[in-house]
Amino acid sequence: MDILKEKHIPRATIQRLAAYVQVLENFARDNVEVISSNPLALASGVNASQVRKDLAYFGEFGIRGVGYPVLSLIKAITASLGVDQEWRMALIGVGNLGKALLNHDDFRARGFNITAIFDCDPFKIGEIVHGLEVRCTSDLPRLVLEAGIEIGIITTPPERAQRAAEHLVNAGLAGILNFAPARLHVPEGVNVEYVDFFDHLYTLAFKHSRQD
Amino acid sequence: MDILKEKHIPRATIQRLAAYVQVLENFARDNVEVISSNPLALASGVNASQVRKDLAYFGEFGIRGVGYPVLSLIKAITASLGVDQEWRMALIGVGNLGKALLNHDDFRARGFNITAIFDCDPFKIGEIVHGLEVRCTSDLPRLVLEAGIEIGIITTPPERAQRAAEHLVNAGLAGILNFAPARLHVPEGVNVEYVDFFDHLYTLAFKHSRQD
Repeated sequence: MDILKEKHIPRATIQRLAAYVQVLENFARDNVEVISSNPLALASGVNASQVRKDLAYFGEFGIRGVGYPVLSLIKAITASLGVDQEWRMALIGVGNLGKALLNHDDFRARGFNITAIFDCDPFKIGEIVHGLEVRCTSDLPRLVLEAGIEIGIITTPPERAQRAAEHLVNAGLAGILNFAPARLHVPEGVNVEYVDFFDHLYTLAFKHSRQD
Repeated sequence: MDILKEKHIPRATIQRLAAYVQVLENFARDNVEVISSNPLALASGVNASQVRKDLAYFGEFGIRGVGYPVLSLIKAITASLGVDQEWRMALIGVGNLGKALLNHDDFRARGFNITAIFDCDPFKIGEIVHGLEVRCTSDLPRLVLEAGIEIGIITTPPERAQRAAEHLVNAGLAGILNFAPARLHVPEGVNVEYVDFFDHLYTLAFKHSRQD
């Protein structure tokens, strides 16, 4: 598993490994204990030779002619990505989308815990949402330290996203997951991932227009 | 704008064009009327020469030494992508995430209207959410025809996503936006876009682990 000790793994590889974990978890839910590369390829939408190549890194887990033990493979992949530990996250913007994410059981199930929530709306501050108290962003730096928060999530309207990003960066966070439809300016060394619904909708709409 | 008449535009190009639209809309909201390529590049996180190359296709809108009129450029890009019309969408899975999307004003503002919503939970059927009645998926084929629905959205739990996809495909839809953390099997010719939060979280976590 030493490949993943390297600093730069291509984004596409991480995407495939994330897809395998998703698929393996579905198999685990159906009580499948051992899986060979072909059904894993089919379920992941990745071609079989790529799957075998990717999983060669985890080869010690494969049993020739039988396949990979599902649970061990999930563990090996998540350990290699460094995502087998608990990650604590702060969320800014407790609107509908923020609340939906707070209710998304899969975050917690995969070790990504939202442990503090923030909103600038004075009517929301103090409200309890999913067991967490909505706080003013001025409390962010203190809570990041106290709760060991490492990732920030932005679910504000687009016009407030940049401000939210600045709060997160000033509190010392270097990883941001941005759901707001706005591009962010952050200092070098801060990683932003954009969850962009419209990019996907535009792709579908564009392909559909071309098929007619 | 004839470039975009081609059938295959690289995914990366669509992503950049979607990002420009987002950024241009932010400028429009701030009442900026004309923009040159440098600030557009900075705000989009794309390098300036790539922006100029992409926008050369829309060159007739640029005024040398002045820039691009913001609103006309938005119109030109969205028209070229075929996303300047109304798109009607059906959503399956009226849980927290489904409700959050129904409340997401940006969908409607950009012409993507969720016009019918479905859930298999008998306790939800008949409920009114955001002005729409939750219906049984057996009504899907009829409603797709009657309402001119072209895109399906899946916001079910992962174990129900494949079933939802089959309902959408059987109702004649060829474009699916899947928010459930599960890979889908669909017939050739059906396009699936995955909005995968974990792919992004894994990327952030992986980069963070490597920085320590």
